Amino acid sequence: MSTKSTVWKLNQGADRRIRAHHPWIFSNELSQSPKGHAPGGPVRLLDVKGNFVASGYGNPHSLIAFRALSFDPHVENPCGFEELVSQVVSCWGHRAVLGYHKSFRLVYGEGDFLPGLVIDRYLCEQGKTLQVFAVQILTAGMQVAIGDQLENFIRRVVEEATQGQLCLISWEHTAIVSRNDVNIRRLEGLEIEAPKIIKAVEGAKLEDIDILLSPVAGEEPVKMACDLFEGQKTGFFLDQAHNIALLCEQLKKSNSWEKPIRVLDLCCYVGQWSTQIARTLKSMGFIVEVTAVDVSADALKFAKKNIEREGALALIQKLDVLEQLSTLPDKHFDIVIADPPAFIKAKKDIPTGRHAYLKLNTSAFRLVQRGGWVVSCSCSGLFEEQELMEVVGKAIRRMDLQARCLVRGGHAADHPNVMAFPEGFYLKMFLHQVVY
Amino acid sequence: MSTKSTVWKLNQGADRRIRAHHPWIFSNELSQSPKGHAPGGPVRLLDVKGNFVASGYGNPHSLIAFRALSFDPHVENPCGFEELVSQVVSCWGHRAVLGYHKSFRLVYGEGDFLPGLVIDRYLCEQGKTLQVFAVQILTAGMQVAIGDQLENFIRRVVEEATQGQLCLISWEHTAIVSRNDVNIRRLEGLEIEAPKIIKAVEGAKLEDIDILLSPVAGEEPVKMACDLFEGQKTGFFLDQAHNIALLCEQLKKSNSWEKPIRVLDLCCYVGQWSTQIARTLKSMGFIVEVTAVDVSADALKFAKKNIEREGALALIQKLDVLEQLSTLPDKHFDIVIADPPAFIKAKKDIPTGRHAYLKLNTSAFRLVQRGGWVVSCSCSGLFEEQELMEVVGKAIRRMDLQARCLVRGGHAADHPNVMAFPEGFYLKMFLHQVVY
Repeated sequence: MSTKSTVWKLNQGADRRIRAHHPWIFSNELSQSPKGHAPGGPVRLLDVKGNFVASGYGNPHSLIAFRALSFDPHVENPCGFEELVSQVVSCWGHRAVLGYHKSFRLVYGEGDFLPGLVIDRYLCEQGKTLQVFAVQILTAGMQVAIGDQLENFIRRVVEEATQGQLCLISWEHTAIVSRNDVNIRRLEGLEIEAPKIIKAVEGAKLEDIDILLSPVAGEEPVKMACDLFEGQKTGFFLDQAHNIALLCEQLKKSNSWEKPIRVLDLCCYVGQWSTQIARTLKSMGFIVEVTAVDVSADALKFAKKNIEREGALALIQKLDVLEQLSTLPDKHFDIVIADPPAFIKAKKDIPTGRHAYLKLNTSAFRLVQRGGWVVSCSCSGLFEEQELMEVVGKAIRRMDLQARCLVRGGHAADHPNVMAFPEGFYLKMFLHQVVY
Repeated sequence: MSTKSTVWKLNQGADRRIRAHHPWIFSNELSQSPKGHAPGGPVRLLDVKGNFVASGYGNPHSLIAFRALSFDPHVENPCGFEELVSQVVSCWGHRAVLGYHKSFRLVYGEGDFLPGLVIDRYLCEQGKTLQVFAVQILTAGMQVAIGDQLENFIRRVVEEATQGQLCLISWEHTAIVSRNDVNIRRLEGLEIEAPKIIKAVEGAKLEDIDILLSPVAGEEPVKMACDLFEGQKTGFFLDQAHNIALLCEQLKKSNSWEKPIRVLDLCCYVGQWSTQIARTLKSMGFIVEVTAVDVSADALKFAKKNIEREGALALIQKLDVLEQLSTLPDKHFDIVIADPPAFIKAKKDIPTGRHAYLKLNTSAFRLVQRGGWVVSCSCSGLFEEQELMEVVGKAIRRMDLQARCLVRGGHAADHPNVMAFPEGFYLKMFLHQVVY
């Protein structure tokens, strides 16, 4: 492809949001139709007077016609292959500075000034130590820039990161999975693809592999068995690390638990919350009994393994959390985790999604005992924090309880946000303690 | 006073918000004028059909005519003296369960279902160990219920808490300060009073006393010298403990600092941020050099003492952060804390307050070096988080920087929130790392 950028002009006044560094321009904000522009091709964006605004890539088939990668007029083509390699390595440096050396989100799209690109880097153990890159290409711009050369792209990133002493795993022990099985690619005119192993590591079975996480207690990394080939999203939910740490730090300070401590993990997936809770409480000398609930038998198998590895008892229950929780006894659990998958994926889902959050949280507050703790999460970007607050408040009242919110959560630092892009704050969490 | 509650009725439809457990009713939501009701006297609130809604206290002289203490129809008079003692002891129990045993907010008004009452409990050292209760009575209801019997009230709380093994300090070693020097009392028709020592401890000088805080690193409590008699607010800012912990936990994971680490603490007051940062970084083997800035020479004296006790170098600078920061060199500091007093105290202050936050944050991002960290706080309840985001985003752009937000903060768990009362979330914090 040509690296020569097309020049696009904005309508009068349409530069206001992007001058504040919001990275998106909608098609109706452009002075001419973007039709004819090669989807994903580089664009230099000017204001109505011809002054430089941003450079990035454009897509005539998307409502979001332009996404900015740079606000620096001297950067010629921020979508160039080597420019993007260098940006990703810079993200790696950023993570390393923050102490991320195991499994972490390496690139978080707009939050890393790289719209349309998500890369998780997992440190794994399977006989040997290896690293797995799970990559999501969400826009035509990133598809054009790196989509067809993904192996080569990651190879260059690993080369540069190795040179910079950021990467300590060899190319031989590096696997790459493409996770373009996401609906939002359609909005960009891209196909939804099945998960694909772009590069394998001999003898490594990504469908059942242990990833290494930073522990919330102790020194030993926490091992989480999961499916990095076809598991949900990019195989694991690294974004919850911060919220889990908030809960576990609070647990460490508390000393009023009775034994054994009963944890209910709703929509547990591979049991990340329970596993880290078990690690924390065990380090404090408590016995932990986890009831792990999910609709997926595969996920529950992983959850059982992960939780038991931390010395806790794991009771697995294959249930639909919206329909089948009535079998669980009232006021039975000390800690209830309500961390469902996104109930709201499009604006039209909001009413049913709100109802689902309410139903789930009402169950959570029914099942927790007095004095117990409830974690309420939503990862639906379209569901505002204020709305989740209303829903959780309603759930508390429905159960005729009073509860104090101890802490409000959010993303982990490897899912950074930029102030100009509030859409990036998708993950919400409230930790409540029910009044005795 | 009579404990017989007056019955008030709501207008049609006016029960919606309070049924969602928002604790306030405005005077125009009542079916009759509250005139003639003794300010602060107990009220039983009914809906238009005569059904019980809540009980609490009323004030005909306040825009907020009614505040709810209980939504339970069986609770006769939640504003009774002994009922309130028992509620405060229950708050103490709640704090103890969360691991608060040193200095903490014992009662946080609406967040503890006790509108109008704020109590901080400080564990202090001055030769001996003592406890100091700093009390704010913000409404006529609380004034009537306990204002005139404050010593007796705290004595009863200490008695009950001692019996429940929550309180380990004797009454002899208990001091009480009344901190009714707050403007919002006027909205309730109450006088603004000078700080008053209600009960002293022999030999203890509250004007210069060491309070004990939970440390962010190590085991030894952090000592903070401060003025519990006339210091800002209730003498200290316990609400920031959570945000300081968020920063320090992130510092502990980071390992890329060069020595010495330069910290700039803007509006440092008695140096809480710097002191805990110094404790953390010293435990990691770093040398720390703090520049502590405040307009108050008294505060700076405390700050210097507190910071130096943690082995850091403390350079104090008596400066107005909005007018006099130009003397400090650009890109000089590794960590900049911008935690000003509330710039916005009334709606009319919003434009000037917004400008002040922008000015302060612009300075912060000017003074921090590439790769460095900036903490941006606002404790103005009337300044929405979204507005602070805009201001911080603008400050970053003005300095022609890019920055990643690593974490979003909030109150410590001893300042609990209730979902139905979003007004309670007053403290905002963003931690940014500037891109290299």
